[in-house]
Amino acid sequence: MRKVSSIEAMELAIEEGKKGWGNVAPNPLVGCSIVSSKGELLSVGYHRQFGGPHAEVVALNNVKDPESLIGAHVFVTLEPCAHQGKTGSCATALVDAKVGSVTYGVEDPNPLVAGLGLKRLQEAGILVQETTPELAKKCRDLAEMFLHGQTSKYPFVALKIASSLDGVIALKSGESRWITSERSRIRVHYLRAQFDALLVGRKTVVEDDPLLNIRHPDFGERSNRVVIIDPELKLLENIEKKRLFSSRNPKDVIFISAATKEVSDLKGCTNIAVPESQNGLDLDSAMLALRKVGIESLFVEGGAYTLGAFFRKPYLVNKLYLFVSGSILGMGNGVSWSEHFEIARLDKKIVLDNISCEGLDKDLLVTAKIQGK
Amino acid sequence: MRKVSSIEAMELAIEEGKKGWGNVAPNPLVGCSIVSSKGELLSVGYHRQFGGPHAEVVALNNVKDPESLIGAHVFVTLEPCAHQGKTGSCATALVDAKVGSVTYGVEDPNPLVAGLGLKRLQEAGILVQETTPELAKKCRDLAEMFLHGQTSKYPFVALKIASSLDGVIALKSGESRWITSERSRIRVHYLRAQFDALLVGRKTVVEDDPLLNIRHPDFGERSNRVVIIDPELKLLENIEKKRLFSSRNPKDVIFISAATKEVSDLKGCTNIAVPESQNGLDLDSAMLALRKVGIESLFVEGGAYTLGAFFRKPYLVNKLYLFVSGSILGMGNGVSWSEHFEIARLDKKIVLDNISCEGLDKDLLVTAKIQGK
Repeated sequence: MRKVSSIEAMELAIEEGKKGWGNVAPNPLVGCSIVSSKGELLSVGYHRQFGGPHAEVVALNNVKDPESLIGAHVFVTLEPCAHQGKTGSCATALVDAKVGSVTYGVEDPNPLVAGLGLKRLQEAGILVQETTPELAKKCRDLAEMFLHGQTSKYPFVALKIASSLDGVIALKSGESRWITSERSRIRVHYLRAQFDALLVGRKTVVEDDPLLNIRHPDFGERSNRVVIIDPELKLLENIEKKRLFSSRNPKDVIFISAATKEVSDLKGCTNIAVPESQNGLDLDSAMLALRKVGIESLFVEGGAYTLGAFFRKPYLVNKLYLFVSGSILGMGNGVSWSEHFEIARLDKKIVLDNISCEGLDKDLLVTAKIQGK
Repeated sequence: MRKVSSIEAMELAIEEGKKGWGNVAPNPLVGCSIVSSKGELLSVGYHRQFGGPHAEVVALNNVKDPESLIGAHVFVTLEPCAHQGKTGSCATALVDAKVGSVTYGVEDPNPLVAGLGLKRLQEAGILVQETTPELAKKCRDLAEMFLHGQTSKYPFVALKIASSLDGVIALKSGESRWITSERSRIRVHYLRAQFDALLVGRKTVVEDDPLLNIRHPDFGERSNRVVIIDPELKLLENIEKKRLFSSRNPKDVIFISAATKEVSDLKGCTNIAVPESQNGLDLDSAMLALRKVGIESLFVEGGAYTLGAFFRKPYLVNKLYLFVSGSILGMGNGVSWSEHFEIARLDKKIVLDNISCEGLDKDLLVTAKIQGK
């Protein structure tokens, strides 16, 4: 059997956890690895789907000989749960298996767990250890949506942008299709799968008539909720002609509007009325309202107008996914993804953290967090 | 001694070659590794400075026991030279050392070499092999400036841009300093060191009063040639007050202007007169003229106006270095690096090749080639 270090063991747990992408929300992505008392890798496991067994239990069950678990070392990206939820308590399962130590990535802020899982392990005489700061950061990233959900009243919001290298999302004529490559577009569908809903502005629906569902080899074709910002509900008039309407249950088409009075015929769609603010609808209220109807995470694929609204309230934004094509289109006749956002002085800029970049064939994918999120 | 595969040996040669950065132009960056007939790494070497010994000779001289060279395998990123130049012929040195095989990355297009080096080796009974296509590409990248110089009448032109993630290089108010981080700025000085001259527009000198020299731990403080595009030679009037003038030999300040008549007092600076075109000075003529005065490579650090002129003639551009800071400034009040460039239709876009990305602390450095260059 393969010998692994404690660093490798946690890295394996993180990689395992990622495999739950798209299937566990609103639960966190969690991975686990188990190493024998002699340092040999015994098993790995991950939380595969919402309501299903937790990563620790999967990893425990993957071990053929229960004897080998005695004194074994468990590496798990998130604190094991202490409570009896949909599945049994993981802390109890680990105690029963007589493992020797548990190394965890990040504490669970869920008040039903919050340190109780670790306490339960310690009380049973199991050595409990934090992982290294670098790996802890990766574990936090793995569970970022969940951690946000436990501590914020807003949904976890990611903005998706696709532009040329010079930030052009369309020519002024409106020409814009296929700026990025096929591989980037597949990745967009992969990302969508992890979010509770997609958000676009009215204009995007009018101009592009997109399906806005999930089409990806890992997930097949999947329907999802779509949120449309449309202050006057103009789109409702002929929504039945739009592809996003005919391809899903109408109630999964959610309008954010200023229409506080009862709307005569919603055509089965959902309407969430929010107050107006200086620059259109009050986005703050909209986000609170979406969270209340169970939307814990939101993937924003709006055009420049919608993006501008979010940039003016950067505290509402967690993450940015910028797909950059290998092309220069020229701002002289181009529409910039940030043209509806402006700052008066450089010190008013939006600061990004954790900026990183990945090659996708001829494109790049830049990922970043908004500072402080 | 360490055993290495032929792939590793060529990768080592490429890494060696990079060490000549900033000191070999207009010669190519070249690296070499030598592996014994038993597969053990004997030595490495690189072309350290213009006029100095070539990589192959350095690597041969690094081997203590000449006997071990008999039947050895030589890996060199560029075809060994056949001619007696400033230094002896490398092909002859390899033949004299009785090596068994030579694997090369790219053929030397220099008419004094062009296959003659390889031929000389083959005639002496040495096995001559091309490296893999992937490594050959890396070898071409290593020697890109030199290869360009052998086949083009223009200088090798790289554009350097520093912007926010949304492509803003300054606010409309003019505020622009320090958009990118210290580490990016150090890298800029490193890049400058490899180029024969820096080019800026008049406006950049007026607004920023930059030194435009090289200040980098690897190279100390180094003076270099500066090219200023200034159609009416307006800057000449008070050039002596500018930092770039007082920090270098005046003749290294080269104006590109439309002043075809004799200028009464150039203050020791150089003036190159070129015809005017529809959009300012004819850049094509300017590039040809710079090449004629010995500028083989040019690092363009102009603002949006200068960049626009190059984007309108993408065949003059080889490479792009885009430093991206982790910030969003908003195009609503921002100046885009491509705002003086426009296309009427998407199919007129500038296509980039070999796009890649590297993290530099809180910034990203995106590198790309113009397609077909």
